[in-house]
Amino acid sequence: MFNKYDIIVVGAGHAGCEAAAAAANLGSRVLLITMNMGTIAQMSCNPAMGGVAKGQIVREVDALGGYSGIISDKTTLQFRMLNSSKGPAMWSPRAQIDRMRFAEEWRLMLEQTPNVDFWQDTVVGLLTNDGKVTGVKTSLGIEIACEAVVLTNGTFLNGQIHIGEKRFGGGRTGEKAATGITEQLVEMGFEAGRMKTGTPPRVDGRSLDYGKMEEQWGDEIQGRFSYTDFELPKDQRCCWITYTNSEVHETLKEGFEQSPMFTGRIKGLGPRYCPSIEDKINRFAERDRHQIFVEPEGWNTVEIYVNGFSTSLPEDVQYRALTKIPGFEKAKMFRPGYAIEYDFFPPTQLKLSLETKKLNNLYFAGQINGTTGYEEAACQGLIAGINAHQKINQKEDLILKRSESYIGVLIDDLVTKGTEEPYRMFTSRAEHRLLLRQDNADIRLSPIGHALGLISDDRLKKVDAKIENADTIVSYLKSTSINPEKVNAALEAAGTPTISQSVKMFQLITRPQITFENIRGSDQSFDEMLSGFDLETIEQAEIKVKYESYFEKELEIVEKMKRMEDHIINSEFNYLNLVSLSKEAREKLMKIKPRTLGQASRISGVSPSDISVLMVHMGR
Amino acid sequence: MFNKYDIIVVGAGHAGCEAAAAAANLGSRVLLITMNMGTIAQMSCNPAMGGVAKGQIVREVDALGGYSGIISDKTTLQFRMLNSSKGPAMWSPRAQIDRMRFAEEWRLMLEQTPNVDFWQDTVVGLLTNDGKVTGVKTSLGIEIACEAVVLTNGTFLNGQIHIGEKRFGGGRTGEKAATGITEQLVEMGFEAGRMKTGTPPRVDGRSLDYGKMEEQWGDEIQGRFSYTDFELPKDQRCCWITYTNSEVHETLKEGFEQSPMFTGRIKGLGPRYCPSIEDKINRFAERDRHQIFVEPEGWNTVEIYVNGFSTSLPEDVQYRALTKIPGFEKAKMFRPGYAIEYDFFPPTQLKLSLETKKLNNLYFAGQINGTTGYEEAACQGLIAGINAHQKINQKEDLILKRSESYIGVLIDDLVTKGTEEPYRMFTSRAEHRLLLRQDNADIRLSPIGHALGLISDDRLKKVDAKIENADTIVSYLKSTSINPEKVNAALEAAGTPTISQSVKMFQLITRPQITFENIRGSDQSFDEMLSGFDLETIEQAEIKVKYESYFEKELEIVEKMKRMEDHIINSEFNYLNLVSLSKEAREKLMKIKPRTLGQASRISGVSPSDISVLMVHMGR
Repeated sequence: MFNKYDIIVVGAGHAGCEAAAAAANLGSRVLLITMNMGTIAQMSCNPAMGGVAKGQIVREVDALGGYSGIISDKTTLQFRMLNSSKGPAMWSPRAQIDRMRFAEEWRLMLEQTPNVDFWQDTVVGLLTNDGKVTGVKTSLGIEIACEAVVLTNGTFLNGQIHIGEKRFGGGRTGEKAATGITEQLVEMGFEAGRMKTGTPPRVDGRSLDYGKMEEQWGDEIQGRFSYTDFELPKDQRCCWITYTNSEVHETLKEGFEQSPMFTGRIKGLGPRYCPSIEDKINRFAERDRHQIFVEPEGWNTVEIYVNGFSTSLPEDVQYRALTKIPGFEKAKMFRPGYAIEYDFFPPTQLKLSLETKKLNNLYFAGQINGTTGYEEAACQGLIAGINAHQKINQKEDLILKRSESYIGVLIDDLVTKGTEEPYRMFTSRAEHRLLLRQDNADIRLSPIGHALGLISDDRLKKVDAKIENADTIVSYLKSTSINPEKVNAALEAAGTPTISQSVKMFQLITRPQITFENIRGSDQSFDEMLSGFDLETIEQAEIKVKYESYFEKELEIVEKMKRMEDHIINSEFNYLNLVSLSKEAREKLMKIKPRTLGQASRISGVSPSDISVLMVHMGR
Repeated sequence: MFNKYDIIVVGAGHAGCEAAAAAANLGSRVLLITMNMGTIAQMSCNPAMGGVAKGQIVREVDALGGYSGIISDKTTLQFRMLNSSKGPAMWSPRAQIDRMRFAEEWRLMLEQTPNVDFWQDTVVGLLTNDGKVTGVKTSLGIEIACEAVVLTNGTFLNGQIHIGEKRFGGGRTGEKAATGITEQLVEMGFEAGRMKTGTPPRVDGRSLDYGKMEEQWGDEIQGRFSYTDFELPKDQRCCWITYTNSEVHETLKEGFEQSPMFTGRIKGLGPRYCPSIEDKINRFAERDRHQIFVEPEGWNTVEIYVNGFSTSLPEDVQYRALTKIPGFEKAKMFRPGYAIEYDFFPPTQLKLSLETKKLNNLYFAGQINGTTGYEEAACQGLIAGINAHQKINQKEDLILKRSESYIGVLIDDLVTKGTEEPYRMFTSRAEHRLLLRQDNADIRLSPIGHALGLISDDRLKKVDAKIENADTIVSYLKSTSINPEKVNAALEAAGTPTISQSVKMFQLITRPQITFENIRGSDQSFDEMLSGFDLETIEQAEIKVKYESYFEKELEIVEKMKRMEDHIINSEFNYLNLVSLSKEAREKLMKIKPRTLGQASRISGVSPSDISVLMVHMGR
C-alpha cells in the first residue's frame, strides 16, 4: 500500500512539521504521520511565537530555511521586540499569533511542499533490523518501510491529563494519547522518563472588563521573524495586562489539597521557568501579585488565553480564583487549565545530530527530548529532518556550534548534560550570546542553509549584500571626519558633550546617547548613503559600530576555544582504557561519547584535569 | 462555578450549533458544551451542503432564521442548482464547501451571538427531577443546572469505528467516543438502537490525473442558500467525475471476507441511499461501474474527498481498488474510509416538538434521532432549540406542517413512523412537494420566523415585497394582451406556434417553450417592469405563471386535509378505552400519542376505519 519512504516523521507539531519540510526540501521522500490531519501544527499552549532567546531561535530556523518564521509572520496578531532598550544581544522578537490561522498555514505550506506525503494514523511501534530503524507500524496494523524515522511525539506518549484529582489519558485535552513506542524503546534498552507541563484556562473575551486592565500594543513599526519579505498583516491587535492579588492567591490555596502537583499524583517534573500559578504562589510566597497577560487567540475569535495562569487545580477553584482578578470579575471559562504528564527520553541518549545512539537512523526532536516550547521543538525538528536526510545520503551531519547559534547551544546542552526538567532556552545559556543575536541570524546561518540546499541563491545574495552594505557604512564612518559646526547642534540635542575639533564620525556613534538617527542631517553624504539601504542593513551597521569592540573580544574567546571545539574525538574511542581519567569521567564520557574535546569539557563530572589528560593523550 | 442556564446544548455539530444559535437569538441563555472547541461544526463526511430535498431544507432553515445557509454561502467552493431542467419543485441547490472555513465561520458566528456560552467538556449524564431534566453532569464531575437540554450527540454515543477487521472506540476518527448518556436513558426506560454510517478515503489531490476525469463546474450565475445578501466568494473551484470499473469491483471483492458489514461485526443499519461502495457492488451486481465525484476539501488544500467511495473494507483493499479508478492510478491516500456505529433513540419516543415523551424539557436533534445528513441535523437542531426556548417560556411549540415545509415532513415522519435505518430526506417523502420549493421557502416560513422573533422586520419586508412584486408581474401578464406582430418573431424563435390575434401575455407564458426571457423585447412595459425587480422576484413570478394551476390543485388537496391536520387530539386521550379501534391501533396510538388526527392517520397500523372511529368519537 505504501512504497518505501526515505524518511517517516511521526507527529505533526512544530518539530514534526519542520522536520518533514526540511527533509523534503532537501529531496527526501517524506511521509508525515499524524493522528489527525485536522490538528496539524496545533499550538497546544499559548498563541505566541518567540520571546527572549526563543525569538532568536525562530530567526535561526528561518535563516536555515525552516518555515516557522514565515508562518508566524503571516499569522501575527501583534509583534513586539522585547528588551529593545537593552543591548542588541538581548533584543528578542515575539509575536502573538492567530492560533487557527497558524495551524492552517502550516498545513497548506506542507501540502505545497513537494515530497511531503501525509497519512492519518497512530504509530504504535518501530520496525528495526540489525540495530537500525527500518520503518514504523501503525495502529491500523500497517507496516511502512523507510530509511530513517524522526519521532516528534510531543506530549502524546502515554499522555495523562490532570485537573484537580481527576485524571484521564490524552495527548492534549480532547485528543487521544499514544501508546506502544515508549514500551518498545524501553525494551530495546532506552531510558525513558516522565515530564509534566501545563496550560491555563481559556476564557470568553466578551466577559472581560478591559477597562480594568493595562493595554499592551505591538511595536509601531512591526518587525518580523523571517528574513524573507512576505507581506505582513496590516493591523495589530491589542493585548492586556492585569495582576493577581492576595485574594486570588487565597482562593487558589483552597484547592492545594486537591492539587495533583502537591499531592504527589504528578511524578514528572514541570518547567521551572514556566511555572503554574499555584507553583508561583508556593515558591514566591512573599509576592502579593503576579502578572497576567491577557492574549487574544486570533483575529476574530473571542477566546482569550490567560497567560501566566497555568494551573491544574480543580476547575471550580480555577474559576473562583479567576473571577477575583481585576477585569475578570464576570469571566466565563471556555476550557479549564490542566497539567499533562508524558514520556520523554533523556537526551544524553542522542548524538549531536539528534540521532539516537542505540538505534541507527532514528532521530528524536521536541518534547520527546525533554524540552519545552514551540521554538525549541521547531529547531530540533529542523535539525533532525536535515540530519536524517544527510545520513541516508551518506552526507555529513549538520552540527551547529555553540558559538554560532542558539540551536547549537540547545542541542549541545541536551546531549551533553541531559535535562531533569523541561528544558527552555534562555540567553544566559549561551556563553557567546553577544554574537548570537536576532539581527545577524541570517549572517551566521544562511551560508550553512545555502550549502545544504535549503536557502536559495537569491536569499544568500541578499545576506551577502547586507554584510557588504553594512561594512560600507561602517567604513564610511571610520574614514570620515565631521567638524563641530556640522554636528554640535545634534550632539547638544542628544545631551552629550559637543566637540571642539573634527573627529571621526565612528567615534561619535560609539557614544551611548548617539544613534544614526541623532546625527541625521549632519552629514549629507551619510544621509544619502543610508537612504539607499533597507532598515535591516542600517540596523546591522549601527550595531556593528556601537558594539564592535565587545564583539571582537567575544570572537577572541571563541577563537581560543576553537582548538577544543574543533578537536573531533573518534566516536569509537574507549575511555575505559585511559586510567588517568577519574572513574566518573570515564563513565560519563563512555555514556555521552562527546564529539569534540569542547563537548567533553562540558560534561558534568568531567573536570579540567580530565580534559588535560585527554588532550595529552590525543595530542600524541 | 456555573450559574443556571436556560438551555444546555450538548454537541456542536450542525444540530447543536443551530439549536444554540436559535435558542440564544430568542433570548435564552445557552451553554454549548463540546468535547473540543477546536472541532465545532466539523463536517464529518462530505464537504458539501444541500442537494436534492436537502437544499430545500437549508433554505427553510435560513427562512426561519437559522445560520446554515449563511455559513454555507460564505464558504462555498462551487454552487449548482440540481435538476434545473425539471419542474421548480425539483430544483435543488447544492454547494461544495470549504471544510475548514465552514467550521471556522460557524464558530465565529456563534461567538458573535450574544447569550451563547461555551464549555469544553464531555457530558456523561443528565440531572433529573420529577420527570424533568434539570441539568447535565460532565466528565469533570461538574453539574450544571438548566431548564432544558438539547442532546445532539451525532455519532459519538458509544461510537465504534470499523476498518476491515479492526475496530476501535471513537466519535470520529482521531476523536474520542462519549459514554454514559445512553446507559442512563435506557435505565430510565428509553429505547436505544444502533445505527451505522460511513465515509470514504481522502486522497492527495497532487497525486491525481485530472486529465482522465470529466470536469464539473458550478453554475455560471452562482446561486445561494440564504435569502439574506451576504457577499458570495468571487470564484468557484472545479470538481471532477470519474467511474469505477469491473477491475475496481473485483479488487474490492477481495476484501469482502474482512468486511465488517458482510461478516456481521456491524449490527447497526446503514443509510440505504448513501451506501458504501461494497454495498453498491453487492446490491447492484449487474452494474459494471459507479460514479465517483472528486471533490476538493477547500480553496487551498490539496485534500480530496472521494464521494461515492464510502467504505469500511481493509485500508489496503481501499487503496488497491482506488488506484484502479481512472485518474487515481497514482493516488496517495491521506486517511482511509471507515464505518462508524453509534447509538440512536428511535424517534417515536419524541413529540413533534422534538421533546422526549418520557422526560420533560429534554430535546433530541440530529443523528441521535436516527437521521443522516447535515441538513436533516441542522433543521432538527433549529426546531429543538426553538421549542426548548418556547417551552421554558410557556410559549406554544413550533410545529411545522407537512404542507408547509420539508422540516415538517421530516419531523412528522420520524415521530409518527420512526425509522429503522438512517433517515434521509427525499422530495418523494413530501406529498405536497409541489408547494415546498427552494424558491418559496422564504414565503412559506419567514412569517413564522418573524413571529417567533428570529427574522427581522427588514427581512420580512423583503419577503412581502417579493410576494407583492411577483403578484404585480403576474397581474400585468394576466391583464395585458399582446398582438401578433409584437410577439410572433419571439414565438417562432422559441419554436412554438405563432398567434393570429391578440392574446393575454399570461397565456403565452404558460407554454412550456416560453420563458420571460423569450418574450423580452416584445412588450416595452413588461421589460421596464422586470428591470425594476431582482432575479428572485422575477423567478417567483415566472414560476407562478407557469405552474399556477398545479399549485392551485395542490392547495385544494391541502385544504381538504386541513380538517384532519388541524384537529388537535388531547395529549392525555386514552385510546385503550376506545374498543371500536383495532388492538394494534390502540397500542400504536398510545405509543405515538399523535398531536392531530392527520398525524394519527399516518401511523402504520392505524387504518382508515380506525380514523373514522376516532373522528366519530371526537366529533361528539
